[in-house]
Amino acid sequence: MIKVAVLGYGTVGSGVVEVLQDNRELIAGRLGEDIEVKYILDLRDFPGDKNESLVVHDVKTIMDDPEVDIVCETMGGVGAAYEFTKSALTAGKSVCTSNKELVEKHGAELLKLASENGCNYQFEASVGGGIPIIRVINTSLAPERIDSIKGILNGTTNYILTKMADEGADYASVLKQAQDLGYAERNPEADVEGHDAGRKIAILASLMTGKDVAYDDIYIEGITAVEPVDFKFADRLGRRIKLIARADRNDDVAITAFVAPHMIPKDHPLGGVNDVFNAVLVTGNMLGDAMFYGKGAGKLATASAVVSDVIDLGRAKLAGISLPCVWSEDKAVLRAHDEKKESFFVRTASVDADKLASVIPGATKVADADGQTGYVVDDISEKELNGAIERSGVCVRKIRLA
Amino acid sequence: MIKVAVLGYGTVGSGVVEVLQDNRELIAGRLGEDIEVKYILDLRDFPGDKNESLVVHDVKTIMDDPEVDIVCETMGGVGAAYEFTKSALTAGKSVCTSNKELVEKHGAELLKLASENGCNYQFEASVGGGIPIIRVINTSLAPERIDSIKGILNGTTNYILTKMADEGADYASVLKQAQDLGYAERNPEADVEGHDAGRKIAILASLMTGKDVAYDDIYIEGITAVEPVDFKFADRLGRRIKLIARADRNDDVAITAFVAPHMIPKDHPLGGVNDVFNAVLVTGNMLGDAMFYGKGAGKLATASAVVSDVIDLGRAKLAGISLPCVWSEDKAVLRAHDEKKESFFVRTASVDADKLASVIPGATKVADADGQTGYVVDDISEKELNGAIERSGVCVRKIRLA
Repeated sequence: MIKVAVLGYGTVGSGVVEVLQDNRELIAGRLGEDIEVKYILDLRDFPGDKNESLVVHDVKTIMDDPEVDIVCETMGGVGAAYEFTKSALTAGKSVCTSNKELVEKHGAELLKLASENGCNYQFEASVGGGIPIIRVINTSLAPERIDSIKGILNGTTNYILTKMADEGADYASVLKQAQDLGYAERNPEADVEGHDAGRKIAILASLMTGKDVAYDDIYIEGITAVEPVDFKFADRLGRRIKLIARADRNDDVAITAFVAPHMIPKDHPLGGVNDVFNAVLVTGNMLGDAMFYGKGAGKLATASAVVSDVIDLGRAKLAGISLPCVWSEDKAVLRAHDEKKESFFVRTASVDADKLASVIPGATKVADADGQTGYVVDDISEKELNGAIERSGVCVRKIRLA
Repeated sequence: MIKVAVLGYGTVGSGVVEVLQDNRELIAGRLGEDIEVKYILDLRDFPGDKNESLVVHDVKTIMDDPEVDIVCETMGGVGAAYEFTKSALTAGKSVCTSNKELVEKHGAELLKLASENGCNYQFEASVGGGIPIIRVINTSLAPERIDSIKGILNGTTNYILTKMADEGADYASVLKQAQDLGYAERNPEADVEGHDAGRKIAILASLMTGKDVAYDDIYIEGITAVEPVDFKFADRLGRRIKLIARADRNDDVAITAFVAPHMIPKDHPLGGVNDVFNAVLVTGNMLGDAMFYGKGAGKLATASAVVSDVIDLGRAKLAGISLPCVWSEDKAVLRAHDEKKESFFVRTASVDADKLASVIPGATKVADADGQTGYVVDDISEKELNGAIERSGVCVRKIRLA
């Protein structure tokens, strides 16, 4: 019998308990051992809840109980969650989490701490919710030198961009609609400014390189500046606008990682990923492209990912093994996002179009729309492009092409 | 040091050697142990090949060498491949394979034999080429009761259907084009009649149920009867025609498994899977939908999947553990494919349309095209529908909707 404690009985935590209890028999059949939720840590009481009797308020009860094999940290944040995770690992209890912020900040350190204490730290649910991407990178893609990861990693922004494209509506009104539907937070900054996607690509880039990629070192651009006219141009180009989180290998040493809106072809695998769905496209040196698609959030999808870790941790505990994950504390080498040659869409007021075209000689005119003229510029770094735009003296909006 | 023997130096076998050698250093970094190809079994010699010295002609050399930990069976067929796999497992050597025919026929038995001999049998490459679906089902989806698997599991037929849709061409001319490009065999029967997809869905259905699902018990319909006019109707319905291999849970006991062309909505995740690409859409009771997309075939993509197994087998060997896979020799309960109520597209010559509509009262007219009239019929089993068509006495073509 494997005994589990769940830290935090919120959305994800209660989902984890639900998955473990509702699918208990089939999970036991697959693991070859029963899994029981012994404790739920929460500051609140839950009178009437069927798991009321499992709720404890003092984390010490869990840490001091040698019967607890696995701790699911579904609290979020980097304060108590960090302390409790360290306590559990130090006590030889394996930990799994859905907490992307903690994983991004302390992943390498916590993996090392687990290894030193003969237990494991797992975080499938921290990226892509129910999409099994972390374990896939650590196992299925272990033969590969991963050359690129491109992800639609945030459901809120993908919903907003999908609606703006389909309805021709502006950002503010679609955001309000998303908030009313519960797809966006009242304070949407973490999503719409790209921070959430940035944390997730930092985690994936760390696994891609085996070294530490910090969120703070990643260039991040959100979707708040995307306007209805951009979707008109995208349509003319046979493209959709998506917030793409990217990590690209430059050479044997360095990678580039950033988050920014991109215009991607409609028939690109990521081009059909709409609404709140997420997807991750991985390019390996042997495999070529593989894409993983599903619900990036949601109570039970995320909980299912946490429970897949619980099962792996249970198996590892029974066999006394460590689970595969290479992520050292050494810093990965990051190149600036604006130095690599790429392709861009740029637009400016049609009256200024000649001025712009004169400073960017390679610019190819796409179309006019709503008093704006759009161009495609190939094989230019963002730095060079910004320099040219500055010299032009006109007001320009740009979106990357991918 | 883990030592590997590769059986068969054909397309996949030589790809396995290439992946293991070219990515040797990074694989060793992830496994924590070097992997070396010690033998290549083939009847032929390979003068001038850089691995010429590794080639042996007698399988006994491999089976008798206690240094060989892992055998990669990339021969194909169910004759020698079956015998050699049994010999290796009996000798305690773990085996991985890309051989879907052997896995479909003897998977449960070989898993049992491996378990009895303290080693493992793995077959990631047998379904979906480079798409990591087998390991995902066995690990990431272990918390789930899988309710449905829908796959585009054959690249040749997907290429043909994509071209027929895009070019309005007929089956025979597109098949010829596919053959000229090397996407279809000279004898295309295994692909175009759905047998290849049938073997693959039999394997996935076995993993879904944990019991044995035999290819022979699966209803299989290929793509040879799909005509250009069907694509016109599909387009009117906002759909694409895809050869879908399905396994659906009916209840706690039984599943339905079959292969047949389906009209699926263009914005369905499988609707955007074109050309030779494959994809598998899995629906779990907690997770909802997750889709896995990539190259279903190809030397290096398939080889990468074999090597992901080699790495897992190496890890398992070092730790002395068995890898998770539930697939018993008990027969799964299969319900007939034609008893479940579904939706269908049917068409007949427009002159016969009234006769058809009169025997299928629920039929909704879609459109006329090329002298044919098309209908959608909802909530009817194929058996009932066939009965009605027979009573109508007219010639009818039907394609499932999904």
